[in-house]
Amino acid sequence: MFSFSPIGYIQTPFKERFGTPRQPGLVPSAHAKLTLVADSRWQGACDGLEGFSHIWLIFVFHANANKAVRAKIHPPRLDGEKMGMFATRTPHRPNPIGLSVVKLEKVEQNTIYLSGVDLVDGTPILDIKPYVPQVDALPSATGGWTDGKKLRALRVEVSSAASIDAQKHCGEKANAFLQMAREVLELDPRPGFYKGSDAEPNPYTSVYGFRLENLNVTFTVDGDVARIESVQLFSSERLYTRF
Amino acid sequence: MFSFSPIGYIQTPFKERFGTPRQPGLVPSAHAKLTLVADSRWQGACDGLEGFSHIWLIFVFHANANKAVRAKIHPPRLDGEKMGMFATRTPHRPNPIGLSVVKLEKVEQNTIYLSGVDLVDGTPILDIKPYVPQVDALPSATGGWTDGKKLRALRVEVSSAASIDAQKHCGEKANAFLQMAREVLELDPRPGFYKGSDAEPNPYTSVYGFRLENLNVTFTVDGDVARIESVQLFSSERLYTRF
Repeated sequence: MFSFSPIGYIQTPFKERFGTPRQPGLVPSAHAKLTLVADSRWQGACDGLEGFSHIWLIFVFHANANKAVRAKIHPPRLDGEKMGMFATRTPHRPNPIGLSVVKLEKVEQNTIYLSGVDLVDGTPILDIKPYVPQVDALPSATGGWTDGKKLRALRVEVSSAASIDAQKHCGEKANAFLQMAREVLELDPRPGFYKGSDAEPNPYTSVYGFRLENLNVTFTVDGDVARIESVQLFSSERLYTRF
Repeated sequence: MFSFSPIGYIQTPFKERFGTPRQPGLVPSAHAKLTLVADSRWQGACDGLEGFSHIWLIFVFHANANKAVRAKIHPPRLDGEKMGMFATRTPHRPNPIGLSVVKLEKVEQNTIYLSGVDLVDGTPILDIKPYVPQVDALPSATGGWTDGKKLRALRVEVSSAASIDAQKHCGEKANAFLQMAREVLELDPRPGFYKGSDAEPNPYTSVYGFRLENLNVTFTVDGDVARIESVQLFSSERLYTRF
């Protein structure tokens, strides 16, 4: 057994798993702040990091509700088909360790500002590493079952009610907030295991809700169009279908 | 604290840290075998993996001799200049977790054959993940201080004595063995902290030895040319400068 203590924790707009992007880089509006543990021995440990456009985050999937590991899982983009767990990036793996490349915005002493994150708020970070394109970027690699899969699956509309809501709660940041919500929904956050199944209740006919920052975003889906219905102050009552 | 049990261990040609490549992909001849822990719950967990050309290994730097973490270190390619530890991929970090992308050769049940590895033999593996080029390959990322640094620093010659030695010990695999040794030496395995320093003893005037498979490879360096001097059965006596 190997034990690790987090080097820091990340603050992100994603307050629950549902709505958190499944891969990094796909919600560029998702800004985050990584605060490293205050440790005097680390003085200067980030020197030189600011020259890199991207860094790796190695982290713990701390929000896994279901701790069971299944050998085969339903990746969201496979419409119900199963895949070996090690052939996926599922959080449900023998060691719940995550790996994401994110954009580095700024380094200020022991605080690192990032964007394009796909981590739930409060995720413990085990390590960061610079992204070294000479070594890490393999554009001609073949991506197995992921090749040719569209990462953006839905077109997103915003209802006029939702626009008014966003204006009310976010003021001048309303457009930025709605842009982030759009980017999230373009990825279709709904879980894969319902797709192509006849299981009831069928969440594909429901109103869904997910928490983004301190707000609850509700949406419906019709075919390949998602529609943001409302933006409300988040309440812990689970009024809408969540996952 | 988070505790993880290895999902498997890797067998590689690199039997000690000195001579182990510092990044993956640079010694394509370095073949390796990852054996996953036998766990009946993982039946089928690798299904679909064989479609990927590359996978990530997340592992423990178990061979670190020096457990001290320094905020700033001397990267080998910086000729004595220091860099913040988090701006490097040094094994000496608060959580000694490594990350390498390697070529996937073949999957046979719970055994995974790889090449281009940069791991010391026996390294415990915490997780594997498919390399998803859509997400992981960022060829236009900027690599900070690593940009423009040559990964292959030395030209390599093989002495006739070493050729005869390799023939004797490896038979028909002599050329393959020497090719792997060449690839290792092209990277200049000598540590960075002596470069540009007047510290004695100066290993840059010495005969060095490193263990590759069951053999000891000795070499000298003159300017930017490394010369393989001999290939002998490995003995635990440290007859040559090692690190």
